[in-house]
Amino acid sequence: MDKFIIIGERIHCISPVIREALANRDPEPLLARGKEQLDSGATYLDLNIGPAERDGEDIMKWGVKLLQENLDNVPLALDTANRKAIEAGISVYDRTKGKPIVNSADAGDRLDYIDLAAANDAIAIALCSKQGVPRDNDERMQYCQEMLEHAMELGMEPSDLWFDPLTLVIKGMQEKQVEYLQFIRQLSDMGLNSTAGLSNASNGMPKEVRPIVDSVLTAMAIECGLTSAILNPNDKRLMGTIKTAEIIMNRSLYADSYLDI
Amino acid sequence: MDKFIIIGERIHCISPVIREALANRDPEPLLARGKEQLDSGATYLDLNIGPAERDGEDIMKWGVKLLQENLDNVPLALDTANRKAIEAGISVYDRTKGKPIVNSADAGDRLDYIDLAAANDAIAIALCSKQGVPRDNDERMQYCQEMLEHAMELGMEPSDLWFDPLTLVIKGMQEKQVEYLQFIRQLSDMGLNSTAGLSNASNGMPKEVRPIVDSVLTAMAIECGLTSAILNPNDKRLMGTIKTAEIIMNRSLYADSYLDI
Repeated sequence: MDKFIIIGERIHCISPVIREALANRDPEPLLARGKEQLDSGATYLDLNIGPAERDGEDIMKWGVKLLQENLDNVPLALDTANRKAIEAGISVYDRTKGKPIVNSADAGDRLDYIDLAAANDAIAIALCSKQGVPRDNDERMQYCQEMLEHAMELGMEPSDLWFDPLTLVIKGMQEKQVEYLQFIRQLSDMGLNSTAGLSNASNGMPKEVRPIVDSVLTAMAIECGLTSAILNPNDKRLMGTIKTAEIIMNRSLYADSYLDI
Repeated sequence: MDKFIIIGERIHCISPVIREALANRDPEPLLARGKEQLDSGATYLDLNIGPAERDGEDIMKWGVKLLQENLDNVPLALDTANRKAIEAGISVYDRTKGKPIVNSADAGDRLDYIDLAAANDAIAIALCSKQGVPRDNDERMQYCQEMLEHAMELGMEPSDLWFDPLTLVIKGMQEKQVEYLQFIRQLSDMGLNSTAGLSNASNGMPKEVRPIVDSVLTAMAIECGLTSAILNPNDKRLMGTIKTAEIIMNRSLYADSYLDI
């Protein structure tokens, strides 16, 4: 089985530093965070420029070129509600290290992000929701099937859809976590790729508790067959957990020094 | 679903302090380790007196009475290759807080430990092995069935057998860990209780690595449906993992302070 893929989440316009850097086209903060995440084990970097209604196309092109030219053609997930900005980003994207990821489609208003991915030979993150939180796994599976059929009609490979079960916050939806994990197992049993913003589950928890919760949920999700995640690769406990999970799943070879590699 | 049951492993004759205390009938080391483990969240305490060929009966009776009289009738797992010592321990055991556990039967030479449990209305830990390491899960399941049938012929409730998949060391049997976890899931799907000496998996690893490996494997095993484990409740990372897993599995209610409770 393939190694677990880590998409680094830290180039995100929700961070004031990144927001300002995007607005001023200031390379340093993006490159610093990009390098930190790659050094810690990220394969992909997420480039989230927010809604970017005004100059999204220009920002995305700038960001894609900046990161790829300086970080050895790092593969990227292009993340914005501005569809044209994603197209613009892909137009300058270098595929040497991997296809671009369109982040993200869903089974509702964002179904056309699958068309966008199909038209550009890209991977699409496919959120198993339509409006709001899916009621149960039947509803998740229905959306999964709708997106899968749509993508296949457009000629996409099923492996280019990375299904996201929609991570739910434990404070408020504690009783839904087991079902969430079961859905990841269902995707795995169907041979489908998956991804998740796992740290959403610990939203609202004390700062010192979050890495513990994120680690336990991640270990469980990997055992259930999750194939990738969007996360903070600079969370040391979380990365130790993932490296250890890869040893247990027999996808990387044990050495006494494996945590330092 | 019932809460995950922790059997504290630290009263074990492999520790020189405990070995000496058992030989000299010195109460303090046993009581100190017993209390530490209960304070950290253990439900059962394992009392491992080793082979104890000579005065096993006397040692076990002394240990059972000592721990139960001083620690509020704590339920115990009686752990020795000396069958008569287990019988002697049960003869003075107080069941107020739970049945005694016979640790442990297997499908080979120790099958008669199931008879011992049946004759004394005790729980038996039932190791799914006969001689050495089971080849695969078919072999594990065969032993599980043999022990289950034997116990039921003797009138035991299936819930009083806690099946142990036999934890394998990662250094040497890395490729067998996924199958091990799958077996725990099979036991869970069959509605059977289970237990495991999870930390055996990290045997031989550097001291600072072991709690990380133990935590990840434990999170995965709980997600697979493991119902109890024999472990060190004073390993803080491991206990944080178990408390968190219980939140995710929705068996204890989340509070911001849950790690301190």
